[in-house]
Amino acid sequence: MNQWMEKFKEDAYIAHLSIDCVIFGYQHQTLKVLLSKFRFGQESWSLPGGYIVKGEGIDKAAYRILRERTGIDQIYLEQFRVFGDANRIIGSADRTRVQQDLRQVGGERFDESSIDWITSWFACIGYYALVDISQVSPQPGEFDDYLEWRSVGELPRMIHDHREILDTALATLREQLDRKLIGFNLLPETFTIREVQQLYEAVYDRPFPINNFQKKIMDLGALERLQKRYTGAANTAPYLYRFKR
Amino acid sequence: MNQWMEKFKEDAYIAHLSIDCVIFGYQHQTLKVLLSKFRFGQESWSLPGGYIVKGEGIDKAAYRILRERTGIDQIYLEQFRVFGDANRIIGSADRTRVQQDLRQVGGERFDESSIDWITSWFACIGYYALVDISQVSPQPGEFDDYLEWRSVGELPRMIHDHREILDTALATLREQLDRKLIGFNLLPETFTIREVQQLYEAVYDRPFPINNFQKKIMDLGALERLQKRYTGAANTAPYLYRFKR
Repeated sequence: MNQWMEKFKEDAYIAHLSIDCVIFGYQHQTLKVLLSKFRFGQESWSLPGGYIVKGEGIDKAAYRILRERTGIDQIYLEQFRVFGDANRIIGSADRTRVQQDLRQVGGERFDESSIDWITSWFACIGYYALVDISQVSPQPGEFDDYLEWRSVGELPRMIHDHREILDTALATLREQLDRKLIGFNLLPETFTIREVQQLYEAVYDRPFPINNFQKKIMDLGALERLQKRYTGAANTAPYLYRFKR
Repeated sequence: MNQWMEKFKEDAYIAHLSIDCVIFGYQHQTLKVLLSKFRFGQESWSLPGGYIVKGEGIDKAAYRILRERTGIDQIYLEQFRVFGDANRIIGSADRTRVQQDLRQVGGERFDESSIDWITSWFACIGYYALVDISQVSPQPGEFDDYLEWRSVGELPRMIHDHREILDTALATLREQLDRKLIGFNLLPETFTIREVQQLYEAVYDRPFPINNFQKKIMDLGALERLQKRYTGAANTAPYLYRFKR
């Protein structure tokens, strides 16, 4: 029995309250999200999530879950909404199906009382995280077959209300990207202004005219200019910048 | 045994998850919040709150709690954050004190297992509501001696982390007042532009120059002009407006 199951058996988790994480990364000029190929059930994907250990508190639980799944510790993390409709899981066709899947595929892992607990009603606290994708080594959790970065423009079918949770996270990210200067968490340590512009275009899914954008970003006063990025053609080499933390 | 206690005895509520409401109203050019004089404990005040009935869902629970406390049904209500630090109540000196108070003052109401349940760790979902203060008849709940409108500028000592919850709600209201055009929920059906300006000044606790403000508000295109408010001196009578719903 692994550590997770031991905790589960010892009634170590708070019932009816879970955490799901929308982990955003940015790669090849595309906004991506880290999804779990759900271990139980056919062709369905879920957000990486977990439970709250008694005595842990919700933010620490979210940081722990993210550390377990991404292997990184310093992470930009923000709670954005609780999802707690009466019919979130209970009463839906999903519940019976997931229970059957848990019995079949996870037979030796879960007894009936665990299956009842797992498939009971949960309010889910949604957190979104912004990570530098190059720093992440995805680690599957108990319910994951494997984890995969998927483009937000081409999402697979997701379980329960996970698509709604993801969409709400994306709307929140769009609202807050500018106001809170958080976009730099998605970029490597150093970057060009053109790369910041491409990030904004990926997040908002629309073009930003380069001249306006450069002025807007520099006016924030949040960037420190470093040396040029030498690529051979010195006269067109762009400056590199770093976010002043 | 009243209805609330019956539900409580029947284990009808979700454990470890509560709802607290920051109910904003506006009166005499002052932003106010509806507080509960906590029935148990000396001189301490709390936010009106409650529990979630199993099968109810969180938003419906919040609407029900607000209806029970304010007597009104149509209410602007927004979830804004979950508060769930590990040491929210458990482990704090508060817990023992509240348990003693519940035993003494509420002796015939609560047995020991109820007292344990009530004073265990809870994550609390914060909702804020905007109401037309003239429509509200405050109704005390199970934990309230009485309810009272208090100015946000002169708040009494509050239990647990309720002051932090209130401050977070106020910061959220300030962030969203403009962006979401929600301020009109605090005003009566019809109002003058000067009254909208005074509302903004009360919420943000700073002056708004009248000329800029009038233009800004009219540019929103959200107001419908009605007849003048006749006060005797016809030549200075201001126009009344109504929010286009």
